[in-house]
Amino acid sequence: MKARDIGLTIGRLPSGALDNLADVPGVRVGHATIDNARHKTGVTVVLPCAENPFTNKSVAASFVLNGFGKTLGLVQVDELGTLETPIALTNTLNVGIVHDALVEYTLRRCEAEGIAVTSLNPVVCECNDASLNDIRERAVTREHVFAAIEAARADFAEGGVGCGKGTTCHGLKGGVGSASRVLEIESERFTLGVLAQTNHGSLADLQIGGHPVGLEIDRRIREDAPDKGSCIVIVATDLPVSSRQLRRIVKRAGAGLARCGSIWGHGSGDVFVGFSTANRIPADAPAIQTMRILREEWLELAFRACAEATEEAVVNSLLSADTTTGYSGKVRRSLREFLPDALRAK
Amino acid sequence: MKARDIGLTIGRLPSGALDNLADVPGVRVGHATIDNARHKTGVTVVLPCAENPFTNKSVAASFVLNGFGKTLGLVQVDELGTLETPIALTNTLNVGIVHDALVEYTLRRCEAEGIAVTSLNPVVCECNDASLNDIRERAVTREHVFAAIEAARADFAEGGVGCGKGTTCHGLKGGVGSASRVLEIESERFTLGVLAQTNHGSLADLQIGGHPVGLEIDRRIREDAPDKGSCIVIVATDLPVSSRQLRRIVKRAGAGLARCGSIWGHGSGDVFVGFSTANRIPADAPAIQTMRILREEWLELAFRACAEATEEAVVNSLLSADTTTGYSGKVRRSLREFLPDALRAK
Amino acid sequence: MKARDIGLTIGRLPSGALDNLADVPGVRVGHATIDNARHKTGVTVVLPCAENPFTNKSVAASFVLNGFGKTLGLVQVDELGTLETPIALTNTLNVGIVHDALVEYTLRRCEAEGIAVTSLNPVVCECNDASLNDIRERAVTREHVFAAIEAARADFAEGGVGCGKGTTCHGLKGGVGSASRVLEIESERFTLGVLAQTNHGSLADLQIGGHPVGLEIDRRIREDAPDKGSCIVIVATDLPVSSRQLRRIVKRAGAGLARCGSIWGHGSGDVFVGFSTANRIPADAPAIQTMRILREEWLELAFRACAEATEEAVVNSLLSADTTTGYSGKVRRSLREFLPDALRAK
Amino acid sequence: MKARDIGLTIGRLPSGALDNLADVPGVRVGHATIDNARHKTGVTVVLPCAENPFTNKSVAASFVLNGFGKTLGLVQVDELGTLETPIALTNTLNVGIVHDALVEYTLRRCEAEGIAVTSLNPVVCECNDASLNDIRERAVTREHVFAAIEAARADFAEGGVGCGKGTTCHGLKGGVGSASRVLEIESERFTLGVLAQTNHGSLADLQIGGHPVGLEIDRRIREDAPDKGSCIVIVATDLPVSSRQLRRIVKRAGAGLARCGSIWGHGSGDVFVGFSTANRIPADAPAIQTMRILREEWLELAFRACAEATEEAVVNSLLSADTTTGYSGKVRRSLREFLPDALRAK
Repeated sequence: MKARDIGLTIGRLPSGALDNLADVPGVRVGHATIDNARHKTGVTVVLPCAENPFTNKSVAASFVLNGFGKTLGLVQVDELGTLETPIALTNTLNVGIVHDALVEYTLRRCEAEGIAVTSLNPVVCECNDASLNDIRERAVTREHVFAAIEAARADFAEGGVGCGKGTTCHGLKGGVGSASRVLEIESERFTLGVLAQTNHGSLADLQIGGHPVGLEIDRRIREDAPDKGSCIVIVATDLPVSSRQLRRIVKRAGAGLARCGSIWGHGSGDVFVGFSTANRIPADAPAIQTMRILREEWLELAFRACAEATEEAVVNSLLSADTTTGYSGKVRRSLREFLPDALRAK
Repeated sequence: MKARDIGLTIGRLPSGALDNLADVPGVRVGHATIDNARHKTGVTVVLPCAENPFTNKSVAASFVLNGFGKTLGLVQVDELGTLETPIALTNTLNVGIVHDALVEYTLRRCEAEGIAVTSLNPVVCECNDASLNDIRERAVTREHVFAAIEAARADFAEGGVGCGKGTTCHGLKGGVGSASRVLEIESERFTLGVLAQTNHGSLADLQIGGHPVGLEIDRRIREDAPDKGSCIVIVATDLPVSSRQLRRIVKRAGAGLARCGSIWGHGSGDVFVGFSTANRIPADAPAIQTMRILREEWLELAFRACAEATEEAVVNSLLSADTTTGYSGKVRRSLREFLPDALRAK
Repeated sequence: MKARDIGLTIGRLPSGALDNLADVPGVRVGHATIDNARHKTGVTVVLPCAENPFTNKSVAASFVLNGFGKTLGLVQVDELGTLETPIALTNTLNVGIVHDALVEYTLRRCEAEGIAVTSLNPVVCECNDASLNDIRERAVTREHVFAAIEAARADFAEGGVGCGKGTTCHGLKGGVGSASRVLEIESERFTLGVLAQTNHGSLADLQIGGHPVGLEIDRRIREDAPDKGSCIVIVATDLPVSSRQLRRIVKRAGAGLARCGSIWGHGSGDVFVGFSTANRIPADAPAIQTMRILREEWLELAFRACAEATEEAVVNSLLSADTTTGYSGKVRRSLREFLPDALRAK
Repeated sequence: MKARDIGLTIGRLPSGALDNLADVPGVRVGHATIDNARHKTGVTVVLPCAENPFTNKSVAASFVLNGFGKTLGLVQVDELGTLETPIALTNTLNVGIVHDALVEYTLRRCEAEGIAVTSLNPVVCECNDASLNDIRERAVTREHVFAAIEAARADFAEGGVGCGKGTTCHGLKGGVGSASRVLEIESERFTLGVLAQTNHGSLADLQIGGHPVGLEIDRRIREDAPDKGSCIVIVATDLPVSSRQLRRIVKRAGAGLARCGSIWGHGSGDVFVGFSTANRIPADAPAIQTMRILREEWLELAFRACAEATEEAVVNSLLSADTTTGYSGKVRRSLREFLPDALRAK
């Protein structure tokens, strides 16, 4: 269930066909979900292209809105402006093992193509799902990463799946949310997609399309979830941009979070990572490569697309997630239980 | 006129007595306004303390949300984490002369105290008021800066005064807006104040307290103002914070802007500068100074205060500004013309 | 063998008793070395204090001189300005598993103290030792990390041990090098120590104490090692500094590298991480803590100490390392083979 | 007089024809010098291209090695990655008026071409020449800026001219120094030039080509100049690089300073600004522009060029400057007085 399914239009720009990250051609998303009595967690992977990402590096950028988080791999992304592996998202205490799995996956994949990789920079993002998941047992293994990669597809699920299985967003059940926007620039059509792992915000702050939904729900259930956790936003686009420009774009994910009511709380490690499928650096690039670069003024549209798609992705994560009971008995309720009353309340 | 005067409460935290930047003890604000047929512009200065700011440096920090702007002085603020002059705000093409005036002012003031200053870092922020002001004639002189300093007071005016005389915000008449929030931390009371020079945003995006006021007004007046210009936010507080912590706080001004509907447009040089009056570095500080430092978790409250006060400061700037006609005949209308209908529209 | 042992004095400031990182009281270093036909690699850990680092967080900072590297954990260090685990150094492709081991170690240690940790930010640095070590087999396991922690001591070995077993520095055998400097500030005595994992630089560029040693050796052995790999520098001090100040200090490690002839090559992920043992944030810190903060001007001495100690640490790593033959037959020769002729050559 | 004139070769790469910044085609440099009883100061301007820099923006980048300085204009350079005015260098307290002069110059120049500029980002760098120049009287006027622009040429003077008239470097007379390096990339030839305003370093630290010249001179004259002031480095190149890549290049100026013995002292606002003449953004650029972008690995050569040219530029500034007596009677002696003995001393 998405915002559009409850008649909610967020922003001005049109969505792509699937209204998700995979509307950007070549991008796919896979989940591996762990759902048992003790564990509500998992892994989600974003494949930036159909080809081997190591030998077809994408232009990439990050923006750390709040660095109280454990995302791995940004040092090199920021320096070189490229992405060379799938991006994996998981829980806070499993980032090391997931990093190791991405190394193994890439070494194997490259070896199969006759390339002996000796240096590699996996990107691993995380949210803390400790309120529903017994995080200290670190349930995620290498195999979950391989399974998630294997399962990657364009019409991927949202809500309480993969890395979103155990997350809490604005006091309700969060999860994976995605949305996309289509831009037209001098009759050429581009897409920008967003995937969010939502685990941030306090209930009373939640706004949906300007409606103070959170206040209304808070009146009813007196949720006590603190504004902790984090929000990870992955941005993909086929706009021909440089890494400097991409950084400007992904930064606007912060505006999307704020429009849903977040103040980017102290404990919320809000981290944004983006890549462009239009500008690649192939392994056999010449000494001087030709790149198409968008005129700076046109970024305005991309900023709007990123802010709108992020706002909608947060809402979609809430609408798609089911009420979930954690290992300690804690319950995170689905936003759907409160609709449509909450939206009408104002 | 402020948000509270139209019955609008923004956020959860209480305001200070004046609901402005000067609720932080010691802080004062002065304006010098140029208002004639060709010029709608001016200077606003923020005095960080009653004492000489050069010999009583405040802990300071900045955050550049969008660097398409000409703010001067941030290189040193970011390195040393201190502020040593008043902060001046003016129009884009007058920042040089205002910088020079702050040098002159500080040299004179220090000379009067027997100090021969040979190095100095003024902070000058700006917005582009070219749509109402014949900016190319650069109407601001050194004398305007001295006059603004002279005029500094706690109960300063908001709206179309000083640096806000010629600004445009969300397609309406912008200006200077201010607000404050009071925080209690283990029975000690602190204040955080915000002053905004608002010159950003598109009309259709404007939201006030969640109401899509801009869409409604846009339907009526078909305003054509593009989302250009900038927003400067000055944050003052008496919280005992380090410069690293202060940077985290002032960053949340961006959430305030987004809640009013801004996507931090390409052309909007959104720049935030903050200082703490609690942590000073006096000229005669010992080799090792003792400082009170807030526990990191308590920043959460300060983040909320900054986001809320910024959101309200933008609204206050709109509510306080009068309809203004520029040198070329362009008219920027006051939000007040559209109230209360616009707020009811939803 | 250290610089002083060959009569070489680097810089002006005196060294501490051990002339290593552990001259800073409370700091210890441990190695686990893997040395077999296929593998020359290992782990080195830096323990920042005798107590549990998670419940006695140190003020910390990083500076990424060249981000072509895979260091993990800096996002949070930069945001919060604290270190909460031992720092581990290893090879490029093992950072994930070492990260996981630091999680396990900290969870266990805290559990033993009755604390259930659910969020944690290990810092793991790396150099690429692929020229001597069959890096793709990822020989380092969790047990190596635990063993290195267990082995931590003040009078630790330098040269080809731990994370330095397989590294190459300026075309010669690199490794772990360390040095310290003692500073006096108004009759109070402080120490700054440096530990470097040296894996950077080209032979022809190598300078020792101003002598163009590298050119001379290059004439003899025509070494073909490219300027790749990286240099990690860990800085410890008992100076009472803020995280902003510490970042300024650790940055000066770059001057030390340059004085040895490095141009901070493209492929050299030069990353510096520092912590202060003087300013701690205990788990039970009050809402407002009192901290001693060094007056900014006194940082000059700390800058000098960091630059000098880094320069010497690089030299010490070269002097301590033995000639080593890698899994593919490649030989990295010890600088000692060329002394004292090379030093005299000029 | 340049390094090559005393038989000193710095680094491995060959110099361009003039061995200065203007070896990069299109770049010119002009000085206006103020030399009287009270004032030893001035302005130096770097013109990035023969055309109007506002309508032919260059790709640009900055790196602030030490932000204890007052350089103006970097906020926008960092965000947009472009330069749109000449770069001016002057003394610390005159940056405001020089900024204003660059506004006036650009407005006039654009007006002559029929363009009404209403927003502009001048870049103004500075060093503090207060030890020789009565800086508090702020002797530089707008006319000096216009005169320096007018005087711009390829074979410009070095030493105690323009912005270098009153500077002190490593306790000796500093000034303006320049050097260039030529790079060959797959049979295409490129140039990288450096211009330094040298006002940094302590005498005892000075090294020239590895020789501890400073120690030797210090023994003779017991100079008391503290390591204050700053060093500005302007980098120009015709390499086709992005702004991210250029930032990586200009950063290596820090290695050049360190090789001359600088530890990048606390008081030394070491700021580097670079631009590429190869990648321009013309006013009429299409929505999607094609750019040539250098393959990242080739930056290695550019790093070397920047480090070497900076090292030589510092030396050239010392060799070119004459002994100068300041307004208060203080004398800064020329390095030439101590040659060739000092170089032989070791």
